[in-house]
Amino acid sequence: MPAIIQYTTRGLEFNTGKLAWFSVVLMILREMPVAQGVWPMPQMMTQSSEAYLLNPQEFTFQYAKDSVVQPGCSVLDIAFKRYFTLIFPAYSGGNAKGDPFTVVLNVGSGGCDGYPDEDSKENYSLLVSAGNGVLTADTVWGALRGLETFSQLVYQDDYDVYCVNKTVILDFPRFPFRGILLDTSRHFLSVHAIMKTLDAMAYSKFNVFHWHIVDDPSFPYQSYSFPDLSDKGAFHRFTHVYTQTDIRRVISHARLRGIRVLPEFDSPGHTQSWGKGQPGLLTPCYRGTVPSGTFGPVNPTVSASYQFMARLLEEISAVFPDSYVHLGGDEVDFSCWKSNPDVRDFMEKMGFGADFTKLEAFYMENILKIAVALNKTTVLWQDVFDYHENIPMETVLHIWKGTPAQYRDEMSRMTEAGYRVLLAAPWYINHISYGQDWRNAYTVQPLNFTGTEEQKKLVIGGEVCMWGEYVDATNLMPRLWPRASAAAERLWSNEEQTFNVTEAYPRLAEFRCRLVRRGIRAEPLFVGHCDEVPPCLQPSRSMLSRVPERKPFASFCA
Amino acid sequence: MPAIIQYTTRGLEFNTGKLAWFSVVLMILREMPVAQGVWPMPQMMTQSSEAYLLNPQEFTFQYAKDSVVQPGCSVLDIAFKRYFTLIFPAYSGGNAKGDPFTVVLNVGSGGCDGYPDEDSKENYSLLVSAGNGVLTADTVWGALRGLETFSQLVYQDDYDVYCVNKTVILDFPRFPFRGILLDTSRHFLSVHAIMKTLDAMAYSKFNVFHWHIVDDPSFPYQSYSFPDLSDKGAFHRFTHVYTQTDIRRVISHARLRGIRVLPEFDSPGHTQSWGKGQPGLLTPCYRGTVPSGTFGPVNPTVSASYQFMARLLEEISAVFPDSYVHLGGDEVDFSCWKSNPDVRDFMEKMGFGADFTKLEAFYMENILKIAVALNKTTVLWQDVFDYHENIPMETVLHIWKGTPAQYRDEMSRMTEAGYRVLLAAPWYINHISYGQDWRNAYTVQPLNFTGTEEQKKLVIGGEVCMWGEYVDATNLMPRLWPRASAAAERLWSNEEQTFNVTEAYPRLAEFRCRLVRRGIRAEPLFVGHCDEVPPCLQPSRSMLSRVPERKPFASFCA
Repeated sequence: MPAIIQYTTRGLEFNTGKLAWFSVVLMILREMPVAQGVWPMPQMMTQSSEAYLLNPQEFTFQYAKDSVVQPGCSVLDIAFKRYFTLIFPAYSGGNAKGDPFTVVLNVGSGGCDGYPDEDSKENYSLLVSAGNGVLTADTVWGALRGLETFSQLVYQDDYDVYCVNKTVILDFPRFPFRGILLDTSRHFLSVHAIMKTLDAMAYSKFNVFHWHIVDDPSFPYQSYSFPDLSDKGAFHRFTHVYTQTDIRRVISHARLRGIRVLPEFDSPGHTQSWGKGQPGLLTPCYRGTVPSGTFGPVNPTVSASYQFMARLLEEISAVFPDSYVHLGGDEVDFSCWKSNPDVRDFMEKMGFGADFTKLEAFYMENILKIAVALNKTTVLWQDVFDYHENIPMETVLHIWKGTPAQYRDEMSRMTEAGYRVLLAAPWYINHISYGQDWRNAYTVQPLNFTGTEEQKKLVIGGEVCMWGEYVDATNLMPRLWPRASAAAERLWSNEEQTFNVTEAYPRLAEFRCRLVRRGIRAEPLFVGHCDEVPPCLQPSRSMLSRVPERKPFASFCA
Repeated sequence: MPAIIQYTTRGLEFNTGKLAWFSVVLMILREMPVAQGVWPMPQMMTQSSEAYLLNPQEFTFQYAKDSVVQPGCSVLDIAFKRYFTLIFPAYSGGNAKGDPFTVVLNVGSGGCDGYPDEDSKENYSLLVSAGNGVLTADTVWGALRGLETFSQLVYQDDYDVYCVNKTVILDFPRFPFRGILLDTSRHFLSVHAIMKTLDAMAYSKFNVFHWHIVDDPSFPYQSYSFPDLSDKGAFHRFTHVYTQTDIRRVISHARLRGIRVLPEFDSPGHTQSWGKGQPGLLTPCYRGTVPSGTFGPVNPTVSASYQFMARLLEEISAVFPDSYVHLGGDEVDFSCWKSNPDVRDFMEKMGFGADFTKLEAFYMENILKIAVALNKTTVLWQDVFDYHENIPMETVLHIWKGTPAQYRDEMSRMTEAGYRVLLAAPWYINHISYGQDWRNAYTVQPLNFTGTEEQKKLVIGGEVCMWGEYVDATNLMPRLWPRASAAAERLWSNEEQTFNVTEAYPRLAEFRCRLVRRGIRAEPLFVGHCDEVPPCLQPSRSMLSRVPERKPFASFCA
């Protein structure tokens, strides 16, 4: 679908048209703050210089009469309060200038008390004209996206006057899965830090929080079936755990923002911390003929391991409402299995020879059966596909390794085999480097691999991974934002309209300032400062006609 | 001088001695928090396992009767209050366990209302025994260093009991100049962010805040002689400037922590923002025979430039009490000078031929004369030495460029010529990379260059530079800390005792946790968490004798 984005096309006219005039305009614009805009860029957006002043005292959200969803809808009732504060941050209840304005919501289906899931539609349309905005969406989750967009259209001048321009937006996400992974095992992250991340995710229209909750270093998930797991495997059994209440709070906070919570319980590797509270679960490693005292991956040769996993996954399935569960399967080190005589006996008995990938596949098959029985869709790291042929077709495969050439090749092979895939490899955002490395995240082309149109449709989205080796609450936010927002635009917007980093720079710089104003410690892209917002003048006809040069930056009050 | 650091030498015994026993001890220690210690490591330190419980209600700082400094000493009176809170962070005035304890200060000279400067001695000794600590220092600045050390010796258990071990420390800095550069031109930093940095600097015993206050992007220094400089050259004339009051607050906050404030007004390059408020100062660039409308470095061919600089530097000299002033002189681009016919005429008249370094030298010579007349010691970036032979011998040269081989060669040549040097090149800490890059800052050997003992004595210290291209208040603290602390130990401590990164790791990790407890957003070194502090048991003789294995970690209560 073609985009009608006024300021983009006008900008192109400048470049190719009258250069001298362009210089004059540039001179003017340098004195003006950068363009306001919506991030990630909507699929279709038209704005005019016609602006309306908003009076916070006479600003309301309303449900349309024919909306399926009406007052009492928890998700939206709460969102109205949240977005009122985001739209009018400086409003403290005093007298305010501006005119009455109503945002009317028309939502085509219910589900106010449910959870967003893989099939949730997020499309919406937004029409802003004199005195009102009309936000239409198929679902409450789409309505949330539209509210976020509306909040980004409103700006404020130095005199506390808020305004919004005449706007038409038709919008929908490019991919249904737009995730962020936080790793709460390598460093514990407080519920507060997680909820702050969820807030920021909503601002960039991310919709999946992939909670890599446990791993080798610590097991902070407080299980009611196996309390010893966190009692003995967490960094601290009281201060560094997620209680069931904590988890409900996170899931609820996410739900209210249209964000799914995808828990990961990675096995059989990455489970060192599990062994502390579940003796017998891990494989004892041997030095020669005697146990060395160290442990390897989950022991795949004893039925107790599967009984434990079944009970744990049953609990997880009940605690986390999402239809997906991530079961890991990556980076299994065979050296411990090889050292253990009982494992070697089992290999022989099963006819696996010396091929430990067969043992690994045997384990994963059993685990996947448990997940299927629990009616969950499993996500697995790519390793399982790489060594195993009999993965259930419903499984989602998660690509995390390699160069662009390598992960593209992997995408081709996985989709050719008919699997749905999720791309994380180019978005390991914990890897930092000096300079504007948001560009790396921005210029990824997730569908640039060899395959048919049908294969491309199997790419359900992408994920920004913030692994925790060097990250805790002290540095999480500036490392994540706004670099993750660069990936967010790639996953939401039309790639053809948003691939130029030079055009993206001022928009992302402005969005980053918006994050800062909203209390997110998003780091700067480069030299500069957060501009004061432009003056919001009364948009009389005569004024508009006097300053036509400013129209390209249509989201300013003229 | 030999160091007597009990836990270090004991640790070595473990490594070379009974390995089996070592494993057992390691098993125990893994269950225990890491060693507490002092960062940067004192020159000489002995601790015993004898521990004393401190009762905040009966804890006092006192001046010794024969101390030259007595109550009313602003720097120390205020430091007592500050360190009381740092030592007893959880104390809220209620009943507390422990015994009376007095820290007695004996300071050998006055200067309580003065400023630290290049010759200020910072040596101190600290003896902690039953019921008291004796802190002896030549100056109040040394006393501040000793108070910081004492504060790092005290620890607290889960039951709010504070304790300190019997300790003997003799300490002094390896280098007199241990600086941190903040760049407030590429991004503005609030006075709050600067003061928070000064707080953290004191915790690592840094003693110079190099304030790179202005540069090309913005001029936030609000000059009373030339108010247009910030009115027109700051990012915002009201919100993004340092008023004279702001500057006094920064200097005062620094003084109370024994930190010098070294202002930098870099010229003739890096002055784009100056030109906005001082028309005629910068060289007009030409395209062919007509001015292009852009400007280059300060115009060195007109006397007005020197008159302006003289008046500005006169103001700066009065505003900043330190005897040093940094006048930059780096990265002068000749292309604009070359393009300007008036500059070319001047070159010819002066007999400089086509050698623009001579013009540059001419400019710097005039500027240095102004500084000499103002009785200031000038610091210059190395570029000036590289192109100019007649630099006054009192000048301090600041090395910022090149590989280790290159900066070592530069140090040899500068010190051979008899200049004092300051090393920054290996500590451009704004350059980030993935992983434990604190090790790079730690393993610098500032005196590892070819030269005589006399030459080595000319190295006055080093500086950690946090250039501001990608840094503002959102990410400053975690980028600076604890990576800068790694450099701090190199600049304060004995290199032979502190060169092993493996030994430094647990100490720095613990110090980083201390920074976090003190409210500094210092990022983690690697996987893990901030340990709960160890239980502070009543140190009865019988208990001490029962657990001799713990002695190596002498700063625990046994």
